[in-house]
Amino acid sequence: MAVYTDITDEELAQLLADFDLGAALSLKGVAEGVENSNFLLETEAGRYFLTVYEKRVREEELPFFLGLMRWLHDHGYPSATPIADRAGEILKRVRGKPCAIVTFLSGLSVRRPTVAHCREAGEGLAALHLAAAGFPLSRHNDLGQAAWAPMFARLKAEAEGLKPGLSAVIDADLASLAARWPKALPAGVIHADYFPDNVFFTGGRFAGAIDFYFACNDMLAYDIAVALNAWCFEADGSFNITCARALVAGYESRRPLSAAERGALPVLAHGAAMRFFLTRLHDWRATPAGALVRPKDPLEYERKLAVHRSSPDLVLFGAAA
Amino acid sequence: MAVYTDITDEELAQLLADFDLGAALSLKGVAEGVENSNFLLETEAGRYFLTVYEKRVREEELPFFLGLMRWLHDHGYPSATPIADRAGEILKRVRGKPCAIVTFLSGLSVRRPTVAHCREAGEGLAALHLAAAGFPLSRHNDLGQAAWAPMFARLKAEAEGLKPGLSAVIDADLASLAARWPKALPAGVIHADYFPDNVFFTGGRFAGAIDFYFACNDMLAYDIAVALNAWCFEADGSFNITCARALVAGYESRRPLSAAERGALPVLAHGAAMRFFLTRLHDWRATPAGALVRPKDPLEYERKLAVHRSSPDLVLFGAAA
Repeated sequence: MAVYTDITDEELAQLLADFDLGAALSLKGVAEGVENSNFLLETEAGRYFLTVYEKRVREEELPFFLGLMRWLHDHGYPSATPIADRAGEILKRVRGKPCAIVTFLSGLSVRRPTVAHCREAGEGLAALHLAAAGFPLSRHNDLGQAAWAPMFARLKAEAEGLKPGLSAVIDADLASLAARWPKALPAGVIHADYFPDNVFFTGGRFAGAIDFYFACNDMLAYDIAVALNAWCFEADGSFNITCARALVAGYESRRPLSAAERGALPVLAHGAAMRFFLTRLHDWRATPAGALVRPKDPLEYERKLAVHRSSPDLVLFGAAA
Repeated sequence: MAVYTDITDEELAQLLADFDLGAALSLKGVAEGVENSNFLLETEAGRYFLTVYEKRVREEELPFFLGLMRWLHDHGYPSATPIADRAGEILKRVRGKPCAIVTFLSGLSVRRPTVAHCREAGEGLAALHLAAAGFPLSRHNDLGQAAWAPMFARLKAEAEGLKPGLSAVIDADLASLAARWPKALPAGVIHADYFPDNVFFTGGRFAGAIDFYFACNDMLAYDIAVALNAWCFEADGSFNITCARALVAGYESRRPLSAAERGALPVLAHGAAMRFFLTRLHDWRATPAGALVRPKDPLEYERKLAVHRSSPDLVLFGAAA
């Protein structure tokens, strides 16, 4: 949850003066999105989201994210799309910060995904990959495999603080991942943060995805691996193979995997667990005591790492046809 | 801002099953209200607010608050009103906590009220007092004048910590307020927290008030006094007499004050400043380091207290016809 920027009625009126959306009728800061301030904005023209980009989002990357949202929407994918002002601009400023007004996307995220949700989510992820094909911009995955070892080099003390002896285990993981990391799988634009809170359902059916602010170019199957970690672990730490099968089957109903992609899922899932373990460890350290936003527990992903380390076949079994 | 309770899609579906509102289409936790969790809820029937009452609201008082909102709405006052389920119940439970679904009220609150806003706000406050007349329930003002001295008796150390010597100054204030406090002014249901963030405008006109969870029975002019403190001080601590005049004139356009009410405004404004100083001082102390919600600064109201102590005529001057 995050509402960092306060917007006055005067600032809002000034922003809306550039658009053909009429006057503001209401503005509610919403507890959605971790990196940005989000407001549900109602104007005489309808309902929108106003997103104000806080400092962790690099402004030069916004054209990629906003352009992708528009591209996906224009290519039939259910995604919020940015609204251009009368001058054709979608990236605007309010209170000195970059911002955008995007369309409102209906739907509810699920807290405890069922097998049926996992199947729908998998299908929605494949639809995203297919709709994004041809998007002319690209963005390097700066949280990809090459970044993990340098990132961990600065976090060893935190890992030891979390669990004595963990640093050496992670070092061994990183070496193994570097040696096994696939190179030649189909690539394209991936969501890279396809967690249950970023996926909407209506009446149990996939209704769209939000929060494209980690989207980048990488192997498509890596996006499935991120999703397997995010959707298919039970609260007790066990991996739900039925959910994993449903997610992969849903995906394959729209975009069948090659044998190489399927075979790479174990190492990709191990790597995806490493990526979220490392960023959570970083955020854990970087958050001052007394901060308004509680960071996510890195131990959740440390346990997922351990599962992939000890039982890589689990994921393969989940992906069996 | 406050979203303390998380609601899953299953819990929401279970709650909505009792209502004739159709299925949920979206649910967004909003950063509004300090004591409760508030969600903007969209169903097949329209848009609503779902409020979940956290522990600071006493459940036995909810019928008063919800009944008042319904009464005001039914008597033409622009206020959100609770929706009854098929069994006629408005007070429901979700995740073991009391909750209510209320209608959505459009409008924007203003950060820096202009003179015109103050006039509109005053008129809206009088409309509230008139609409509430005849409401059959009553609620004692447990933050009224009689409560201040016992409350301060437990906060002296905090006052000294804030500003050495303050404790004796507040004691003298309390004695003076007790001696001068009016007894026989017109009374009724008051909002008791009529701050700019609880008042909505549309196109510069008063559009309604929210957050009735401090409403109680007390002198009507005390509600004006609370509003004068909340709306008419500049950021630099000075009292804006033009704003005060506009607020009182707006009020009197709907409900003229008696000479006794007008003459009591200085002591009522002094007392209203005491009430918010004391509760902020209490919250300041009660908030553990690292809490998610930052308490409001008690010094803001300590400065307002000082203004009323040294220049009681200011408010009278603002209320001059």
